[in-house]
Amino acid sequence: MRIPVFPLLLVLASGTVLAGDPPNLTEQYRDTADKLIRAAMADRDGYDRLAYLCYRIGNRLSGSVALERAIAWSVEQMKAVGLSNVRVIPTKVPHWVRNSESARMLTPIEKPLHMLGLGMSIGTPPGGITADTVVVSNFDELAKLGREKVQGKIVVYNYVFNNYGSGRNYRTNGASRAAALGAVAVLVRSATPLAMQTPHTGAMEYDPDQPKIPAAAITPEDSYMLARFYAEGTPARVHLEMGAEMLPDADSGDVIGEIPGKEHPEEVVVIGGHIDSWDVGQGAQDDGASIMACLQALAIVHQLGLQPRRTLRVAFWVNEENGSRGGEAYRAFVADQLKNQVMALEMDGGAETPRGFGAGVDEKSMDLLRQIGKLLDPIGAGEITGGGGGEDISPLLHDGVVGMSERAAGTHYFDWHHSEADTLDKVDPEDFRKSVAALAVMSFAVADMPARLTAASGGGRRGR
Amino acid sequence: MRIPVFPLLLVLASGTVLAGDPPNLTEQYRDTADKLIRAAMADRDGYDRLAYLCYRIGNRLSGSVALERAIAWSVEQMKAVGLSNVRVIPTKVPHWVRNSESARMLTPIEKPLHMLGLGMSIGTPPGGITADTVVVSNFDELAKLGREKVQGKIVVYNYVFNNYGSGRNYRTNGASRAAALGAVAVLVRSATPLAMQTPHTGAMEYDPDQPKIPAAAITPEDSYMLARFYAEGTPARVHLEMGAEMLPDADSGDVIGEIPGKEHPEEVVVIGGHIDSWDVGQGAQDDGASIMACLQALAIVHQLGLQPRRTLRVAFWVNEENGSRGGEAYRAFVADQLKNQVMALEMDGGAETPRGFGAGVDEKSMDLLRQIGKLLDPIGAGEITGGGGGEDISPLLHDGVVGMSERAAGTHYFDWHHSEADTLDKVDPEDFRKSVAALAVMSFAVADMPARLTAASGGGRRGR
Repeated sequence: MRIPVFPLLLVLASGTVLAGDPPNLTEQYRDTADKLIRAAMADRDGYDRLAYLCYRIGNRLSGSVALERAIAWSVEQMKAVGLSNVRVIPTKVPHWVRNSESARMLTPIEKPLHMLGLGMSIGTPPGGITADTVVVSNFDELAKLGREKVQGKIVVYNYVFNNYGSGRNYRTNGASRAAALGAVAVLVRSATPLAMQTPHTGAMEYDPDQPKIPAAAITPEDSYMLARFYAEGTPARVHLEMGAEMLPDADSGDVIGEIPGKEHPEEVVVIGGHIDSWDVGQGAQDDGASIMACLQALAIVHQLGLQPRRTLRVAFWVNEENGSRGGEAYRAFVADQLKNQVMALEMDGGAETPRGFGAGVDEKSMDLLRQIGKLLDPIGAGEITGGGGGEDISPLLHDGVVGMSERAAGTHYFDWHHSEADTLDKVDPEDFRKSVAALAVMSFAVADMPARLTAASGGGRRGR
Repeated sequence: MRIPVFPLLLVLASGTVLAGDPPNLTEQYRDTADKLIRAAMADRDGYDRLAYLCYRIGNRLSGSVALERAIAWSVEQMKAVGLSNVRVIPTKVPHWVRNSESARMLTPIEKPLHMLGLGMSIGTPPGGITADTVVVSNFDELAKLGREKVQGKIVVYNYVFNNYGSGRNYRTNGASRAAALGAVAVLVRSATPLAMQTPHTGAMEYDPDQPKIPAAAITPEDSYMLARFYAEGTPARVHLEMGAEMLPDADSGDVIGEIPGKEHPEEVVVIGGHIDSWDVGQGAQDDGASIMACLQALAIVHQLGLQPRRTLRVAFWVNEENGSRGGEAYRAFVADQLKNQVMALEMDGGAETPRGFGAGVDEKSMDLLRQIGKLLDPIGAGEITGGGGGEDISPLLHDGVVGMSERAAGTHYFDWHHSEADTLDKVDPEDFRKSVAALAVMSFAVADMPARLTAASGGGRRGR
């Protein structure tokens, strides 16, 4: 008779498996994780699908023909990889269209400005708006100028870009803050760290208590130039024409597909991103790579014949960029099955090198996630931090569902974001495959493990 | 009586001043250099002039009204800072104009391409050219395709950008190499390391033995997309329209100004860059910052009441980008005074953080330059290396004149080069002032020191 002394000692030495301890997920899922990682790293179909989405369908703003093509194609793709219960969750979406637009500096010298109207902005009156510019670095400077100096002017926000949040604040709220002082339009420095004469659009919002005025993004270069002219005492006179308009809401929908759970099909782990994009570039990093990576994660789980205890679902939410109707429609679809929503994971930070996941869970659940994270250390994607959340899953998180997010390096994400430069070439195939691997391992383990994650107090919302 | 033992020992210990050795230039010019550096680092006029050139005059291609405005303004500026013998050395320059242009992919999906016609290219016939694309990574692949597969096609050069030289090769020679096999046009990946959907133009050349076909730069993004379509067996069909044309040569000229030498006014040290630019962006780093820095270097020498033994001249050469007529006109202007050209320094690598100078000199002269370089160590601009040269001074160097070049960090130079993004904001004011300081110290010392530099065998040419 041989007593297994050494293995027992090793297990005790690792300090993770003792009587009464929960099972060690690292050990439990190691073989499965290795298979998933190998399959993901050898996969070519996922990136090919992303290429199709970017190059053959292209950008896909809510209300566009391209978005509806993307939705129909996504249904086909989910079925093709063998997912079950593939369906569209219908929703109306806002239908903003840019139409033709331009901005031209008239004085001190005449030259075109590099601009992109901000999403949801009204257009100018026919024939455009012509006015002198006043340039401010922040809202305090605007307030100090007061109505006397702002009335009738185009306000330029030439803020210092420290992070995306600050830039988004001027983009979102700049128009109404200036309109409150009588401005006739705003030009907002693009929310990007990189100046390459490329404007970056994004959603703006109107304060219902203020007059609506047109709002456009300009490049950092042009913003800096207008600021210098203003500082030199020769403020630029600008002619702005924007044909932007809001059409009646359009029909659209979220796309979902599943691997039904073998023990608890009613319990759902959902991972996804948003299928819509801005109407420039190809929506490659924002957020095409994410939805294609999430789909491929499920495709690989299915290919390997794996079936988790709970249902594993992929969701392509619609209208993240300018209305969040997809997230709301998904919440309505879940309806009274809230308690069966085990976890919702959103990926909306691009598919640069994956680092790990953020999770809005309590400390005990964090330990479980870290055990799973260890399985992703070989590809550098195992770091588990707090946070977690996303625009599309925020209605779920608001109602107590556990939220997670995929975390990528994000080195250049805001260089490309919401611009003509968000194109397929920005997605490195190897990084994409690592994202697929990380999503497959994490989502499978969370859907399969005996324990359920527990939400921390407070959810997460993240920006468009 | 006090014997100066310590100073003597120190000098001996430094190993640079011994009986019979040439005087140590570091010691000789330390006070002067410190004054020049202090003045340059406190200067604001130089950068203000650069801002005027970039923002109020703008880009200035040979033959353009803006270039002639820039020349007239430069004459005024040289006079305003107190330079002598300010004059224009007249020359005819090629007059290429872009006119309207566009490229559109028709299949597999229809969308506009991001393009800029290459300088000196012919236009398309009225109505444009429509053809399928063939995509190659290099000239070998083109040759392998042969006439059968290239005839009647638009050749796309989707080369890997390793350095500017390789990119320039496809830009310069790609059209004729493709025309030799029957291609009807070429689209060349922009010669830049950065993909931000920004096309970069530049000069191309025709082999007189081949048919002339239109040539345009496309963005790295579009180049990569066309390559993928080609690899997928669905080569893109593209419609190209270019209104480019060559008009009769235009009148233009180099601008020069001087601080006459107090002992040998006939002997000349010239520093400069090129006043022309491409017809996009503002020609800020290429090469407005250089000419403004060279001018300001002389302005500061003059302000401090310094007068070197030899004449110190600044030159704004014209037509560096597409013809080199300014360099040739300057060589003709020098005429038989070649032996009195003590040194010619060109700055055409941007005004990012200055590192030092390249010089095409023998080892003895290199020692002298290193002694001067030490004076620039406090601002990090003292490194002296081999090399030196430039397109505008190459006719002088060819005839044996000593050539030098200013060397900058060059981290982002080719991100911006020949594109809409080459704008004032790319020039850091502090780096600009350091460049002024480095140019002032180096040029003053070389113009003033007793010894003359001796050219190494072989001069230097550098690219546009």
